[in-house]
Formats: sequence, C-alpha cells, structure tokens
Amino acid sequence: MKKRNTTARVGFDLGGTKMMATVYDANFKALATVKVKTPVDEGPQVILARVRETIANALRAAKVPVRALRSIGVGCPGVLDLNEGIILQAPNLGMKRVPLRALLAKQFRCRVVLANDVDAGTYGEYRFGAAQGARTVVGVFPGTGIGGGCIYEGQLLRGKNGSAMEIGHVPILENGRLCGCGKFGCLEAHAGRLAIAAEVAQAVSRGEAPFLASHEGTDLKKIKSGLLAKAIRAGDATVEQIVCHAMRRMGRAIGGVVNLLAPDVVVLGGGMVEAMPRLILNEVKAGLKETAMTPLARNVKVVAAKLGDYATVLGAAALAAEVK
Amino acid sequence: MKKRNTTARVGFDLGGTKMMATVYDANFKALATVKVKTPVDEGPQVILARVRETIANALRAAKVPVRALRSIGVGCPGVLDLNEGIILQAPNLGMKRVPLRALLAKQFRCRVVLANDVDAGTYGEYRFGAAQGARTVVGVFPGTGIGGGCIYEGQLLRGKNGSAMEIGHVPILENGRLCGCGKFGCLEAHAGRLAIAAEVAQAVSRGEAPFLASHEGTDLKKIKSGLLAKAIRAGDATVEQIVCHAMRRMGRAIGGVVNLLAPDVVVLGGGMVEAMPRLILNEVKAGLKETAMTPLARNVKVVAAKLGDYATVLGAAALAAEVK
Repeated sequence: MKKRNTTARVGFDLGGTKMMATVYDANFKALATVKVKTPVDEGPQVILARVRETIANALRAAKVPVRALRSIGVGCPGVLDLNEGIILQAPNLGMKRVPLRALLAKQFRCRVVLANDVDAGTYGEYRFGAAQGARTVVGVFPGTGIGGGCIYEGQLLRGKNGSAMEIGHVPILENGRLCGCGKFGCLEAHAGRLAIAAEVAQAVSRGEAPFLASHEGTDLKKIKSGLLAKAIRAGDATVEQIVCHAMRRMGRAIGGVVNLLAPDVVVLGGGMVEAMPRLILNEVKAGLKETAMTPLARNVKVVAAKLGDYATVLGAAALAAEVK
Repeated sequence: MKKRNTTARVGFDLGGTKMMATVYDANFKALATVKVKTPVDEGPQVILARVRETIANALRAAKVPVRALRSIGVGCPGVLDLNEGIILQAPNLGMKRVPLRALLAKQFRCRVVLANDVDAGTYGEYRFGAAQGARTVVGVFPGTGIGGGCIYEGQLLRGKNGSAMEIGHVPILENGRLCGCGKFGCLEAHAGRLAIAAEVAQAVSRGEAPFLASHEGTDLKKIKSGLLAKAIRAGDATVEQIVCHAMRRMGRAIGGVVNLLAPDVVVLGGGMVEAMPRLILNEVKAGLKETAMTPLARNVKVVAAKLGDYATVLGAAALAAEVK
C-alpha cells in the first residue's frame, strides 16, 4: 500500500445557491467533495455554521485530520477585503462585514485565503483546465450577472478589494438599459441571464415561444439556462435569436477586453455556457471578431471551461496554496 | 566641486514628427536634451542615422563619454517585438522589421530596451510625474489616435508584442464609424484628433465656426490641437461642442477600463490635453462617472500629465534601467 500523503488543502466555493468543499492532496488530487444548499434565508450565522460543518465533513470524508490541513481557499461573490479576508458586502449571501478568514483560521488552524469567485474559477481553468499553459487568460462567466477574471502573465489581476475585471459593467450602449449597478448600458444589463430572461418572457407574452409558454411561462426567476437551452432545441426560434444577440454583444465586449489585455486564451464558463456551449462559443467568436484588432483576434483562442463546478474550488485551493 | 557621477542613461522618444534624446545621471537628473525633426520623408536609413547622431550629440552635450552609458530606452510607436528589440511595423515612421536594438547596442555598447511610446509615457508619469506613488495607473494619450498604457501594481502591462492597452480600439458604438484598424465603432474613430478634425471641418463648411474658417479652413491636417483650443477660446461654440462630445465619450470608455483594472489614477497626456487640460479633464471625469461603478469611480483620480515631452524619454530611460 502507498504511503498516505500527509498534507492537504481545501478549496471552498461559497455561492448564493450552493456551497461546496473539496479536499485535495499536495498534488491537487481530489480526495473528497461535499456539496450542500446554501441556507440563504436563514441568515449569515446559519450560513457560516454550515460552511464550517461542510469543511469538517469533507475532511472527514477524505480521512484527513485537521492537523494535516495546510490551507483553505474560499471563492466568494461580492465585495471583499482580500488583505483582511473579510466579506465586506455580498448581497447574494445576505452578508455584510463578515470576517470569514478569522473565523475559519480559528477553527481549522491553517492559512485561509479569500478570492473573488470568478477570479478563483478563472485561476482554476488556468492551472488545471481549459486555459492550462496560457500566458494571459481572460475568463468570462455569464450568469445572472456577467463575471470576469484575468490571469496576466501568471499574475491574478485582483484589483482593489477584489473588484477588478468587472466585465459585466463595461458600457456597450450609450443609451442602454438601467443596470443593477445604477449605471446605464452595461453589458450585463443587455446580455446577463436576467436581461435575456426578461426579453424571452416578453416573447412568451407575445406568443412567440410556444415551448417555453407550455413550460415555465413568463416568470423570470424560472427562465434558467437549462430551460433556455431546451427551448432552443425544441424550436423556439425567437428564444434562439434573443440568446444569440446577447452572446454576440458579449463577444463584442470581450473583443474590447482583448484589445486591452491581449490574452492568448479567453475561457467561457458558468451555467449558461454549460447548457449551450456551441451556440455561445460561436456567437462570442463572431462578436469578438467584430471588435478585436486583427492581429490580436488571430492570437486568441476562445474555449469553453472544462472543470465545471470544480473550477472555483480548484482555483481557490491553488491560490491559497501559492499565495505568499 | 562635486565629483561627477560616473554612470548615465539615455531616454529616447522616436516619434513621427520629432525625435528626442535626454541623457540622465544615475538618479534620473537630466543632463542634456537634444530634439530634432524626424526626417520621415527621407526613409528609414536616414531616420536611423539621425537617431544615432542625436544620441551621440546628447551625450556630447552632457559631457558623458560613451563608456559611461549603461542603457538606452527607446519609446516607439507601432508594432514592436519587445523581446528581440525590433520595430516590426511603424507606419508613422515608414519602418518595417528594423532591428533597432541591435543597431544601437552595436554603436553604444550598452543595454537597449524598446517600449511602446505610450507605455513609456505612462511609466514616466508613474515614476516621476502626475501618477507618482499610485498603485495602478491607466494612461490615456489622445492624439491622432488614442493610445493607452497601464502600470498594474508596479508592473507595466506590455501584452504580446507591445500591443496591450489599445484603448483607442475599444468599441463604443454598435454601428459606428470605420476605424483605421478596419473595425467599426472604435473609440478612436469617434474621439481621436482626426475624427474631431473631420467633424470640425464639416462645421466650418456649414459656416458654424467663424474663427476656424478665417484661419485654417477645412484641411484636416491643419486642424491641430492648439488651433482647436484657440478656436474654442475665440468663441467657436460648435467646435467646443464637438470636442466636448468626443472627450465625454472617451471618458465613458475610460470608465469601462476602470471597471476592468480598478486603477487609483488615470493620467491624461499628449498634445490635445496640453492644449486644453481643463476642458478635457472635466469631460473625461463626467464621462467616467457615467460608466464606472460607483465605488471604483470614487477611488480613482483623473489627472493631467505633468512631464509633457519628457514623459516618454523619462519612462523609456527608467524602463531600460529597471528591466531584468
């Protein structure tokens, strides 16, 4: 029998719908994963208790004693204080000024590093997934909003308080829609899942999307990525047009980012991309070609993420292991 | 008498209209500057001879022997191969595949480093000018085109072949004007000096700009920054509207870059900004506020460059001295 590896790392993904802990050995081989729903409606204290419990359960499942744990990396949404390891404001988690690092370090007695969830996901794809070996990577994760991350020549662009690479808030129209951030014409306000759902719901109301009409109707909350993909496959042509138009616009905005950061890989991830990878890749490539300068467009590969749910936990675990 | 400093650095700015060499001591105190017209119409060989001559003359003026020279930093426009020190293509200089580093290294027997001219200018302002002490700086230099540079936490974002931070080619309109790069709707096609001159010339034709009409008329080449500033001061209201509209748009695009890179300082430089700093700063600030996310907009200072012509030579000299 092989001798058991004696050190371990935890990667954690703290999302608004689910949380997930994976225990890795020193070579980032996954030993165990625990995934549970985030009890968002029960308040921050219950969520934090669930976080600690989930990490403890994952360690138990991996048969790793707490003393073997070297670091925990946590991917979080919202505004973070990366230096202090504090969640300053995460509306999706109902959290304000939560000193997550201190809480976890106290219980697990190891280094704890917070990262923006999309940054962690992009880093995961860069180290272990679809963007392995790239010089510079831009990650774009369309979902309810549109998140972005960038690894520039090996260095994660964290910005101040983890607020860099807000590609969802790049302006795409001079007289565009009101965005959740309070500005008008942001990419997210025109191409995020919620914006797409709103257009689709109107199409349903007008009788232009029979498949969707017979399923979830016009409730924006229920028009999710998987359902959009199904409606397109079932022949709801208007739904397809709406999604394509939005993703083309996202590609145009990504082309602008390519002109700024000259990446060699753009990796697209998240639920929407998983639900309809081919359609989204095609539209993004077409949009990018409209705006990225020819030599830069020629140098960049647009690929779908490979790691799915594991991108964030892997990236967070690697960042925590590698941080100085 | 103080003992003479025994090492020197040269910063060089190779522009399409003028070239300039400044000799610095080890503490970046300027010892001598030589500035001459670039003989663009006489071909690359004559230009290169003039470059070598200008550096030699600057050294002579500074009373620095060639053996005391440690490094030469050259700021160039166009597409560069930074690793090899080759000007791949510089239309403004009529140059293609010129191994500038090898040529200068042979004559002056010291390290030679090429940099994009706007990158060098931004670096100069970061190390010695208006952006000193900043964490992350975005430099924007509107001129015939609109150049950009970024120092991200001390590191110059060079991109591949020095082609990063092409802020002039960020898309701002979905159905915009044709740009020199071959794409439609780039910032530069709507807010570069040439685009402004074209709109102003139309206003002149329509009889809406009496001051300009009585001076240079409708020749785009003659409608330069200084003249635009004069026309505005003389009361050509339409000229003012055109310039303000363009600079507001530039501010909106810069706001998008702020959402990506979260700089603490945006520094605006170049001839247009020198000719009308207050007007441009005001419009850029207003445009940036329209698109930058509120916490990021609050954290960023927008300032005018301080070093004028010296930004590029200083930045190039510093980059050459500091490069590994």
